[in-house]
Amino acid sequence: MKDPRHFAGQFEELKERLLRMGGLAEERLRGAVRALVSRDHALLAEVISGDARIDALQIEIDDRCFTLLALYQPVAIDLRTIVSTLKINADLERVGDLAVNISEAAQRYLLHPPVKPLIDLPRMGELALQMLRKSLDAFVARDVTAAKAVLSQDDWLDALKDQIFRELLTYMLSDSRTIAPGLELILIARHLERVGDHATNIAEDVIFIVEGRDVRHGSSGNIAVERRKSSNIAPV
Amino acid sequence: MKDPRHFAGQFEELKERLLRMGGLAEERLRGAVRALVSRDHALLAEVISGDARIDALQIEIDDRCFTLLALYQPVAIDLRTIVSTLKINADLERVGDLAVNISEAAQRYLLHPPVKPLIDLPRMGELALQMLRKSLDAFVARDVTAAKAVLSQDDWLDALKDQIFRELLTYMLSDSRTIAPGLELILIARHLERVGDHATNIAEDVIFIVEGRDVRHGSSGNIAVERRKSSNIAPV
Repeated sequence: MKDPRHFAGQFEELKERLLRMGGLAEERLRGAVRALVSRDHALLAEVISGDARIDALQIEIDDRCFTLLALYQPVAIDLRTIVSTLKINADLERVGDLAVNISEAAQRYLLHPPVKPLIDLPRMGELALQMLRKSLDAFVARDVTAAKAVLSQDDWLDALKDQIFRELLTYMLSDSRTIAPGLELILIARHLERVGDHATNIAEDVIFIVEGRDVRHGSSGNIAVERRKSSNIAPV
Repeated sequence: MKDPRHFAGQFEELKERLLRMGGLAEERLRGAVRALVSRDHALLAEVISGDARIDALQIEIDDRCFTLLALYQPVAIDLRTIVSTLKINADLERVGDLAVNISEAAQRYLLHPPVKPLIDLPRMGELALQMLRKSLDAFVARDVTAAKAVLSQDDWLDALKDQIFRELLTYMLSDSRTIAPGLELILIARHLERVGDHATNIAEDVIFIVEGRDVRHGSSGNIAVERRKSSNIAPV
């Protein structure tokens, strides 16, 4: 590794950029849900027209990750953090896209009279946002306990989505005028569920960064890099 | 970089594993769509029960990427290929998950009498599979032209999904017994659309690998690593 002071400085800058990216993704998602509830056409159009900042930031973050990998050849926890940053960056970009998907469905929804007062859907949005924020906080603090808490919240989010789905289906079956708008609300609930999936991905990355252990699919295997490092086997 | 012969061998093994992962993801997706059309409950249950091979392979591929990054400190196109392999691996795992989502929706769909003969939905599945296969072929051949062809196919897939959506809505509006099953078909079409999104991600990665250029968001910026490399600026 080259001059470690430079690495440390650039590494901190990278994390700061990723948090900023997280903040922008959250902002767009919050805007989409708020605009749906308050039937705010202007705000929906604003979310859909996109955010050049988030696009530029995504590319900058990937760029910084590649630069750090190529110049400093980090290992162990630093390597895992940088590679995970690439993945988290992609997750956050997808959250931004989901905010667009939600806004587009909301625009179509607003062409119809309201199906019902929207209570559970904004609650779902709040929960998804909370999961996203907690997973990023866990990333910064390298806090495995907080990351695991996000994983368990995902079950609530799924339960909330199922409940919304069932309730809307009841409306749609009893009044055909609610079919088209009800469908849009179901799609929005699915989009929010996927935000939770991305927060879950981030939380799994945090556990991987800290423990060097892949928690997906219930695996308990340590990664080879870590094994080789600790046993001091020379590179092949 | 350590002994380049060892690197080359492990690099080839990595690519071979990624293709195998792609094959397994395709297989599961094809099974899900075929089982839906032929109303094959056993096959749906098989797709849902998961595939331990794909889970194990995903972890193995990530593991190999980390090992290559840590031991050989690759740069330029090799670095981009390995980091892209991590991303493509995640995309393929998500395709496997989507096959499960499709099968679960298909199980719920099969609780009802058929809404209509399924023609466009398997066509959409075929197109999504084709995009996935082409994007992986483009990855192996480092073929930018083939990768760009995948990007344009994604528009057809979206158009097909919109058509399915509209047609099903017509059924649902005219006969309330088709609402619940129609909804499931709409969800399946959305899942297939997302398979296309993952194929698009892979195609964008191929362009990035070959050209060192990020094609997302219409950006034409070369990545910093490449710029630094070509101008021989010393690492900071």
